[in-house]
Amino acid sequence: MGGPGPAGWDPRRLRVFDTTLRDGEQAPGAGLTAEEKLEVARQLVRLNVDVIEAGFPAASPGDWDAVHRIAKETKGVAVAALARCRDGDPQRAVEAIRVAERPHLHVFIATSDIHLKHKLRATREEALASAVEWVRYGRKALGPDAEIEFSAEDASRTDIEFLLRIYEAVVDAGATTVNIPDTVGYAIPSEFGALVGAVVERVGSGAVVSVHCHNDLGLATANTLAAVQAGARQVEVTINGLGERAGNASLEEVVMSLRTRPAQFPDLSSRVVTEQITAASRLVSYLTGFVVQPNKAVVGGNAFAHESGIHQDGVLKNPLTYEIMTPQSVGLSGSTLSIGKLSGRRGLQGKLRQLGHDVEGPTLDAIYREVVALADTKKDVTDNDILALVEQQATEADPPPEGNVELTGWSVTSSHGGHSQGSVSLTTSGRTETAEGPGNGPVDALFGAVDVAIEPILGWHPVLIEYEIRAVSAGEDAQGNVLVRCRRSTDGEDGPIRTGHGLSTNIIEASLEGYVSALNKLRDAVVREVRA
Amino acid sequence: MGGPGPAGWDPRRLRVFDTTLRDGEQAPGAGLTAEEKLEVARQLVRLNVDVIEAGFPAASPGDWDAVHRIAKETKGVAVAALARCRDGDPQRAVEAIRVAERPHLHVFIATSDIHLKHKLRATREEALASAVEWVRYGRKALGPDAEIEFSAEDASRTDIEFLLRIYEAVVDAGATTVNIPDTVGYAIPSEFGALVGAVVERVGSGAVVSVHCHNDLGLATANTLAAVQAGARQVEVTINGLGERAGNASLEEVVMSLRTRPAQFPDLSSRVVTEQITAASRLVSYLTGFVVQPNKAVVGGNAFAHESGIHQDGVLKNPLTYEIMTPQSVGLSGSTLSIGKLSGRRGLQGKLRQLGHDVEGPTLDAIYREVVALADTKKDVTDNDILALVEQQATEADPPPEGNVELTGWSVTSSHGGHSQGSVSLTTSGRTETAEGPGNGPVDALFGAVDVAIEPILGWHPVLIEYEIRAVSAGEDAQGNVLVRCRRSTDGEDGPIRTGHGLSTNIIEASLEGYVSALNKLRDAVVREVRA
Repeated sequence: MGGPGPAGWDPRRLRVFDTTLRDGEQAPGAGLTAEEKLEVARQLVRLNVDVIEAGFPAASPGDWDAVHRIAKETKGVAVAALARCRDGDPQRAVEAIRVAERPHLHVFIATSDIHLKHKLRATREEALASAVEWVRYGRKALGPDAEIEFSAEDASRTDIEFLLRIYEAVVDAGATTVNIPDTVGYAIPSEFGALVGAVVERVGSGAVVSVHCHNDLGLATANTLAAVQAGARQVEVTINGLGERAGNASLEEVVMSLRTRPAQFPDLSSRVVTEQITAASRLVSYLTGFVVQPNKAVVGGNAFAHESGIHQDGVLKNPLTYEIMTPQSVGLSGSTLSIGKLSGRRGLQGKLRQLGHDVEGPTLDAIYREVVALADTKKDVTDNDILALVEQQATEADPPPEGNVELTGWSVTSSHGGHSQGSVSLTTSGRTETAEGPGNGPVDALFGAVDVAIEPILGWHPVLIEYEIRAVSAGEDAQGNVLVRCRRSTDGEDGPIRTGHGLSTNIIEASLEGYVSALNKLRDAVVREVRA
Repeated sequence: MGGPGPAGWDPRRLRVFDTTLRDGEQAPGAGLTAEEKLEVARQLVRLNVDVIEAGFPAASPGDWDAVHRIAKETKGVAVAALARCRDGDPQRAVEAIRVAERPHLHVFIATSDIHLKHKLRATREEALASAVEWVRYGRKALGPDAEIEFSAEDASRTDIEFLLRIYEAVVDAGATTVNIPDTVGYAIPSEFGALVGAVVERVGSGAVVSVHCHNDLGLATANTLAAVQAGARQVEVTINGLGERAGNASLEEVVMSLRTRPAQFPDLSSRVVTEQITAASRLVSYLTGFVVQPNKAVVGGNAFAHESGIHQDGVLKNPLTYEIMTPQSVGLSGSTLSIGKLSGRRGLQGKLRQLGHDVEGPTLDAIYREVVALADTKKDVTDNDILALVEQQATEADPPPEGNVELTGWSVTSSHGGHSQGSVSLTTSGRTETAEGPGNGPVDALFGAVDVAIEPILGWHPVLIEYEIRAVSAGEDAQGNVLVRCRRSTDGEDGPIRTGHGLSTNIIEASLEGYVSALNKLRDAVVREVRA
């Protein structure tokens, strides 16, 4: 274990640094709008994480703006921004987060020989000098109370003596947190624990030691926990383990390990409200369009499902035989209370609270109207139906911006072996366009018709990258939840990608809704110049 | 490290025991037909695992039969069957695997106080006596050369002294492998390594020490590797980490950790052909209908994708900056060679080999016909299109059994806000039934019409549990891959579930194909009496 840590730091508190909006959002295809990022930030506040890494402001004006809005509007949590150690980056980061209640500047530079040689084409001494320079800059720009964090990219493949030297130098220059990233997901828990222990011994009395583990070998959570056992006191994690490549250590696994096995982590706990985990997982999966596999730990659809007769028998006799944590502890409602028109707004509100959503006012009214309409077309309205409606509502919460495109009509016919024929009407700024056309199937025909109708108005049409439908619940009358991922026809393959959603008991209607929603999000998407 | 191990055992070889078909298949909803299990077993042979755990023969006659067929038809690999330590189970297991080239009997009993008290209602001494009795039985029934494995269920929560005593007793009684399951996914790598070390010290000179780790806290792979570092020489793993609840340690993560970090596992390797990993992952995901999340280590869709500008730059300059393993090493083809009608059968065969599928004869002919037909309706035929056709073919490889239901015609109309109207024709054993009806959407209308048409013939109709469509590739003319999960209307909620697939550029056609395919699989599904 390390020393007492920096002033004001409680060594029994594990600091949870969530980087879903930075490293997670960098996952190919996960691109979120600024509004969606704010929605996630609000859920992270409910989850009670300590730090939200909101983005990488130097990447584009759009990224800067999203970080700035989160810094300005989010209370009760530190807001971090990432910056490379090069002129321009830290300045933009500082400008974006200066308004935060607790700004947290995060500067990084690669330190492994392979990165220095092939990527930065710099010497170790140049990297060290640059790190010290920008840590000093951050300390000066944000004042004595701000958190200044330094990361040595590819630390787990860095020469240990150089690594310790650079950490010492940045702590002397004013860094209050030093982060050890396993950037390529290369470490094995036993060796990573030893590395972290060495860093804690060297600089643990002057700074919080942090870790940031990637999951390329499936070991991110284990490496993070080994680091905590070796004295790390900040963990950089993401909801659902989202992130570059195989992702990062997942918040829910790290936090629930601590909670389930306290004897392994004596006198240490996080302040995360674990009952908000399921709602956070669903929201992030929904907005990014990244599914959570059924066998994902803690938040997978089967994580608390017992199939085997023997297991069921054991669970009925005593849940502890096979369950080491309760579904309730992560906010999974065990209830199957059904809801209908007769339950009223108040009944719905109570139900939503059980499901982890505190909703009132116009949002509650809107969801209530949807539930009543759904109860007309569908026999049973289930918990999953209600959650789907809430999530659909989340992306529609704000009044539609000027010039939004609306779907005002469509029809289609299709049959065995033959082509499909479809027509659509779209309205935007009072102008209505109608188009029709054939296709291999109904979706092809209708999306093609949307393209024809919209091209004269916008000068581009959406290009479909990914398309998925999933029934929200069992039964042939289930709602279909459609995910559509598109880019603009005028951008190259690297153009911004946006995710649209549609929800309806008619999958064709849901598909069109999703396509038009992606189209609207693409209207003001910005091309990123650079990323971390 | 342990002693020399049993006679004939090479201590430098890590034995890979795949339990995808037993623990994996027990995941709620994963239910496979016997034919599908054989298909997976064939891929496990190509992957070159050491042991295939084929099932739990006492569960039902259908399970017995599947294990027996795999034991009879699979060469070059040991075939294991699971049995509880109770009269009847081991006998049925022995009968099922006796025909195997290398039979491997796996008996288990719970040993933790919580399981003994609440589930078995037995004392420690009774459990120990029962374990010894059935290990002796197995040794006698299968002869001196067979592998007899004993598992202490919930070992990680068992009193250590009792655990060591029961392992000693079963090794004395003839067990050649002792398995340490972390049944509830409770262990942390450091403590699990210590537990395994103690077992290796006590019985490692007389038996192979094995581990079986569950993933409830996201630590299954790490616990498995910690066990290997402590001297375990058999790992029980599954493709994609499939299994009860959050699943098991995933084969691909364990094997690739060993291969990527040899210095951490000196003088130890598996004989797995890692280039077959991607094909195995896709096949298991396809047949069980369990998606692999994009950020799954090794086999996720993003595992080798680099989004960030900085990472892309690094990877272009030198792949080692961000890639610790190559996509090729796990059988991911980097190629984007497009294929069309002009490529011919031979061109297609070469392409398929690149994608990890060795196909010839009538199967190649069938896939070739599908590719040619697809090239007529779709601009570009991609790698993913071809893989989807191969997988669709895998479940149709055998001649359709007697009485199969075939879809012979359908049509549907649908429009904004209105109801849909559909009609279908089905043919079975020369008899054709036609039905039509309305629905909330086209799928609801058509599936309802199938129900009406089929009920008079079979006495039941399918009940839809899950429904998913995913575009196989980008573009509006993409093929839709439909997954449909159903049970029979006459079974209760515990009735067998079967997964059907459909593939077409028309999602309505693909949906109907999937529904009818699930219907056909349900015709001879057997209700399981018990499971492990």
